[in-house]
Amino acid sequence: MSSTSFTSVSFNTASSWNLKRREGGKAYVRCGSAASSENTVRVGVLGASGYTGSEVLRLLANHPQFGVALLTADRKAGQPIASVFPHLATQKLPDLIAVKDADFSHVDAVFCCLPHGTTQEIIRGLPNHLKIVDLSADFRLRDISEYEEWYGQPHRAPELQKEAIYGLTEILREEIRNARLVANPGCYPTSIQIPLVPLIKAKLIDIKNIIIDAKSGVSGAGRSVKENLLYTEVAEGINSYGVTRHRHVPETEQGLSDAAHSKVTISFTPHLMPMIRGMQSTIYVEMAPGVSTEDLYQQLKRSYENEEFAVLLGNGVVPRTHSVRGTNYCLINVFPDRIPGRAIIISVIDNLVKGASGQALQNLNLMMGFPENLGLHYQSLFP
Amino acid sequence: MSSTSFTSVSFNTASSWNLKRREGGKAYVRCGSAASSENTVRVGVLGASGYTGSEVLRLLANHPQFGVALLTADRKAGQPIASVFPHLATQKLPDLIAVKDADFSHVDAVFCCLPHGTTQEIIRGLPNHLKIVDLSADFRLRDISEYEEWYGQPHRAPELQKEAIYGLTEILREEIRNARLVANPGCYPTSIQIPLVPLIKAKLIDIKNIIIDAKSGVSGAGRSVKENLLYTEVAEGINSYGVTRHRHVPETEQGLSDAAHSKVTISFTPHLMPMIRGMQSTIYVEMAPGVSTEDLYQQLKRSYENEEFAVLLGNGVVPRTHSVRGTNYCLINVFPDRIPGRAIIISVIDNLVKGASGQALQNLNLMMGFPENLGLHYQSLFP
Amino acid sequence: MSSTSFTSVSFNTASSWNLKRREGGKAYVRCGSAASSENTVRVGVLGASGYTGSEVLRLLANHPQFGVALLTADRKAGQPIASVFPHLATQKLPDLIAVKDADFSHVDAVFCCLPHGTTQEIIRGLPNHLKIVDLSADFRLRDISEYEEWYGQPHRAPELQKEAIYGLTEILREEIRNARLVANPGCYPTSIQIPLVPLIKAKLIDIKNIIIDAKSGVSGAGRSVKENLLYTEVAEGINSYGVTRHRHVPETEQGLSDAAHSKVTISFTPHLMPMIRGMQSTIYVEMAPGVSTEDLYQQLKRSYENEEFAVLLGNGVVPRTHSVRGTNYCLINVFPDRIPGRAIIISVIDNLVKGASGQALQNLNLMMGFPENLGLHYQSLFP
Amino acid sequence: MSSTSFTSVSFNTASSWNLKRREGGKAYVRCGSAASSENTVRVGVLGASGYTGSEVLRLLANHPQFGVALLTADRKAGQPIASVFPHLATQKLPDLIAVKDADFSHVDAVFCCLPHGTTQEIIRGLPNHLKIVDLSADFRLRDISEYEEWYGQPHRAPELQKEAIYGLTEILREEIRNARLVANPGCYPTSIQIPLVPLIKAKLIDIKNIIIDAKSGVSGAGRSVKENLLYTEVAEGINSYGVTRHRHVPETEQGLSDAAHSKVTISFTPHLMPMIRGMQSTIYVEMAPGVSTEDLYQQLKRSYENEEFAVLLGNGVVPRTHSVRGTNYCLINVFPDRIPGRAIIISVIDNLVKGASGQALQNLNLMMGFPENLGLHYQSLFP
Repeated sequence: MSSTSFTSVSFNTASSWNLKRREGGKAYVRCGSAASSENTVRVGVLGASGYTGSEVLRLLANHPQFGVALLTADRKAGQPIASVFPHLATQKLPDLIAVKDADFSHVDAVFCCLPHGTTQEIIRGLPNHLKIVDLSADFRLRDISEYEEWYGQPHRAPELQKEAIYGLTEILREEIRNARLVANPGCYPTSIQIPLVPLIKAKLIDIKNIIIDAKSGVSGAGRSVKENLLYTEVAEGINSYGVTRHRHVPETEQGLSDAAHSKVTISFTPHLMPMIRGMQSTIYVEMAPGVSTEDLYQQLKRSYENEEFAVLLGNGVVPRTHSVRGTNYCLINVFPDRIPGRAIIISVIDNLVKGASGQALQNLNLMMGFPENLGLHYQSLFP
Repeated sequence: MSSTSFTSVSFNTASSWNLKRREGGKAYVRCGSAASSENTVRVGVLGASGYTGSEVLRLLANHPQFGVALLTADRKAGQPIASVFPHLATQKLPDLIAVKDADFSHVDAVFCCLPHGTTQEIIRGLPNHLKIVDLSADFRLRDISEYEEWYGQPHRAPELQKEAIYGLTEILREEIRNARLVANPGCYPTSIQIPLVPLIKAKLIDIKNIIIDAKSGVSGAGRSVKENLLYTEVAEGINSYGVTRHRHVPETEQGLSDAAHSKVTISFTPHLMPMIRGMQSTIYVEMAPGVSTEDLYQQLKRSYENEEFAVLLGNGVVPRTHSVRGTNYCLINVFPDRIPGRAIIISVIDNLVKGASGQALQNLNLMMGFPENLGLHYQSLFP
Repeated sequence: MSSTSFTSVSFNTASSWNLKRREGGKAYVRCGSAASSENTVRVGVLGASGYTGSEVLRLLANHPQFGVALLTADRKAGQPIASVFPHLATQKLPDLIAVKDADFSHVDAVFCCLPHGTTQEIIRGLPNHLKIVDLSADFRLRDISEYEEWYGQPHRAPELQKEAIYGLTEILREEIRNARLVANPGCYPTSIQIPLVPLIKAKLIDIKNIIIDAKSGVSGAGRSVKENLLYTEVAEGINSYGVTRHRHVPETEQGLSDAAHSKVTISFTPHLMPMIRGMQSTIYVEMAPGVSTEDLYQQLKRSYENEEFAVLLGNGVVPRTHSVRGTNYCLINVFPDRIPGRAIIISVIDNLVKGASGQALQNLNLMMGFPENLGLHYQSLFP
Repeated sequence: MSSTSFTSVSFNTASSWNLKRREGGKAYVRCGSAASSENTVRVGVLGASGYTGSEVLRLLANHPQFGVALLTADRKAGQPIASVFPHLATQKLPDLIAVKDADFSHVDAVFCCLPHGTTQEIIRGLPNHLKIVDLSADFRLRDISEYEEWYGQPHRAPELQKEAIYGLTEILREEIRNARLVANPGCYPTSIQIPLVPLIKAKLIDIKNIIIDAKSGVSGAGRSVKENLLYTEVAEGINSYGVTRHRHVPETEQGLSDAAHSKVTISFTPHLMPMIRGMQSTIYVEMAPGVSTEDLYQQLKRSYENEEFAVLLGNGVVPRTHSVRGTNYCLINVFPDRIPGRAIIISVIDNLVKGASGQALQNLNLMMGFPENLGLHYQSLFP
């Protein structure tokens, strides 16, 4: 094959998977993704002590073109990443530093895995040559006043907000390709918009009556040390939180409204499940007059038949979170309801992968001119 | 014994809790619920090797008036119950026998914990003096043809079906008091009907648009040895099964239709959760014109303020399955939806207690003339 | 009230289980354990916002003689208990107050569920008429210098330490009966001493070579909000913590040394398990010359055949934590090892019941002159 | 193809990771590992409907040189693999066939994932050109009579037994390189032998007193549909099974005895944990006179410093199963015991990877002349 067709990167060296392991001069060196060879994109991870940060590192460990050049975590500055995440001890990675001490001159791109609020100012201070994928919520809402309403503080980088591209890859791929700053979508909004946007665009469902019963694994809450996230409080039970008000609502409604060219208000009830990863949105819709579940199925088939990560399952097959654990897939399907004129749509993702770090990597691949699936071919860890 | 004498039952004997433990003549004898003293109702459990059977035994262990006189389990006949359920080893209980070998002359009442299908014939063969609470699905559907449709076989005891009283205690208490045969409700139908029946009766919600997203712990499937119930297949994931067709649908629709005096068709999607016990029904309803969520709340308050086990929580408090683990409570609450005119109702139960054996005991208490809460004062095992 | 009158307590009043439910003047009032009737022991729980406190309340809900008169939780003072523990919302209980505001004149006994360190001073300030069961570690170690070594601070109530009786009920029952202050044992020490003390006393095992591999559910760590106790960090994995140094070591060695009349040093490795409750100690011992596993079995049989809560299982039956969930039992058994001359002992408890609040109630029953099993007849919540 | 040519295999083609995805002629084709290109080793999986089979497929999905040519599962013959393992639906894989219908002429190597017992005869019938890694227990025990004793049937392919090489890669790498038939080790024996063999060879520990307390996730039992493996029976509890007799004992003792040049008898107690994957062996050893834990540490350091998958952690760092989920690593460490002269060794693996399919792939890599880590660079799926 000719690798030259890739924007300009050369693939005619050995696979970096193998190369990296052999570069140490020993027969078998430890796995690692530290940036080193000339043709490797040098990546920084800002906020590497949280779950989305560590998930980026898990994925990059097998990426053939990206290497890790920089890790920041202000409160853990000076520590090796293994002291924060023991499972990363087998990788060769840079130590954690404070973001203020970071030298970005040798970095090509960053994943920003910081909490919302502080993210705005840090991104505003980053040099212009960097490609940025922001996993926080700070640049997802185009309407600054809506940000203020849901996050309780005024937005401090409205000019950057205008530049940011919403990173729902399957829907906005071309815009992402040319973006400098991508606002990576939330997990719930990803699992909802992938199935609904094509159906709304095709006017197949009633937009006034969309009911979403969403179930999420606990890692969606990040590594926050809160009482309600303790094992003893989560295991063996369900917790419906934010029944009337969850911050992912405006983001989801923004995307669905764009598809509908009209304001969409959703019913959205998230449930915390006793599981680490995984998210399922069970979506109850009323179909437009004369539309059948088969019509919905065919529309989704047309929309996603060439997609690798948005996958419509075979007729009647129920998507299961078990099938996407650790993967970047979004599995979807459509079912008839007992109530005539209604349909049930189920979509599942791994909230930390397609719902966060995986989609972020998918986006950065595009932004850097690579095939979007590079480094993302993980299959589900089942059982 | 004559159950009628119990309406004036005297409690001035010693607490049987203490009495039982002391009857052995030793300072401390093992806990147990074997029938023994004169004023004790002698209870049989048919099908004691399943989870609803063992749950009956857990509850009876502290019942002040009921003692266990008989345990059957055909395939385990001859074994001590502890060989089937090691956690019951500390109780004094009769050995398992085959149902055909059972002598019912010394038994006053039975819990029938057998699989649907075979139950009909066994109950038809029981002597008339027995009070019977049947935990199977065999006598729940009044319409014999509906039974045949959903269970794939003709009903073989239609005359008994006519006699059977549906055992949703809070709704049909007076009928249950005088029943000989009670068809104990399914777990999903219990969790749905308790909140919805009063609202439908009061014409507060639209009966054409009831959407139920139900979540159940695995024990709802019983002790069936099936691949999809293995730890490795259940843990850390969600499984939406029977999306379009679950056997609890006709039972639920029957109860809601009775309340509405009109045929109700529901949208019902059950989800298997990675937890042992617990059931939550998240119910999405459209309110009748002019009705508010506060109206729903007040109606439920009026309906259940004198009930012990159906409990409407304080304004805004989310019912949690954690709060009912091992208990007979059904906790409910009502929430406003983002979509105007809609409301969200959440109810939780322990599927093995209020959803099965606890409600069965509540019913038998009534049938025998006791306070319905006898032996049911368990508080949630949290954490 | 005078606890001495209870040795001849009359049980011919109605069972308080029933009585309590009827006292409200309604047919069925909510379950609750608020102190009210004249012949009820009025109990306070100091530190009611932690798991051992809430577990005391679960157990007291069905106690025929004890009522809850006082609940303290300094940081939650002024709140109803249900705001801290939603599962207790169905009980009638006093609101939380600060310990400094507590009026102990109407309290007969207290469970002290406070953290170690602060406990000493609070107990020192309590009035003399109170019976006290302290669930913290503050009064478990007779050697004050050992306390200082393991807990990193000098003991501030050494005179009370001298008075305190170690509350391992099966071993020190008579002393407990007459105690004013009982130091309730830790969970690990309970699970280890119950099987080992009789074997050491009978000189059946080598005291120089006792290896204990202990496994605990997460609730043993209390409701502490720590990163390593998050669901995401605990589920689906094992965590061996404190491999060389756990604070339950000196307490265990003290008890075993007492039995041996000689200093015992143990090998003790605790493992945090992905489960809420339950504790198993797998104990590897070398038998004295000429001793067989059958000798160990017979010794334990003799020691515990009249005990209700320390139960030696039938030959070859493996004790399971599943069998003690929510109960006060300690199940034990002995197995031959492949290495000649060695044996394996397994004991299981529920760390929150026999390992904490259940044994505490067992002790208070004794201290107040009641049968020790009052209110403790819970059977395992299985499945 | 000739596998021998691989000792000089050229890596200067593009990474097959990328190549495979593009071979379909579309921009992005589905991930898959179907054998297709000329320089790919064509692999068969016999018994693809169990967990070790599906785990091989997960790993092969990213292997740059191996493609899947054949999948057998007798009872599921004719079905697509996705009907047995829905999580594999996103891969392009051959349908399942019966082993008797398999054409091995286009297959270079097989993983044999069949149950013990039947495996022997099937392997005996395979053509000679195949490289075989057998994941069953059938060829692990050199002593045929020992096989008969522990597996209850005579061995039916003793001549093959003589040829088989035991596949503990780090210990027997050179023999494996030249093997045609490798008996892949069991999970427990792997986790025990990796830390102990170097210590025994160096005579640093007493071989008469090795006590192993092992904990395993449930997937170690395979996809067997048994009551004791149900979610309801496993979750939230510990199950010590086979306390005195587990089939992995003779295999472990064989390996340790080889290292010791003397018969070793171990104390081995396996515990089933409520987790899907992961295995920990906590090993209690008595050190040889004058030996310190530091000596053990240094010996393991020397033995494994050039190994990729056997990793000695930093001083005092506790190996955690969480750190190896989905990976081929064995993490080990040594700790001092409170009892003088004793040490505690902890090793952890993923039972399905280093304990089964991962080590199998590591071995086949060697047998085919590739670097042993090809396709095995997965990092732990944490959280």
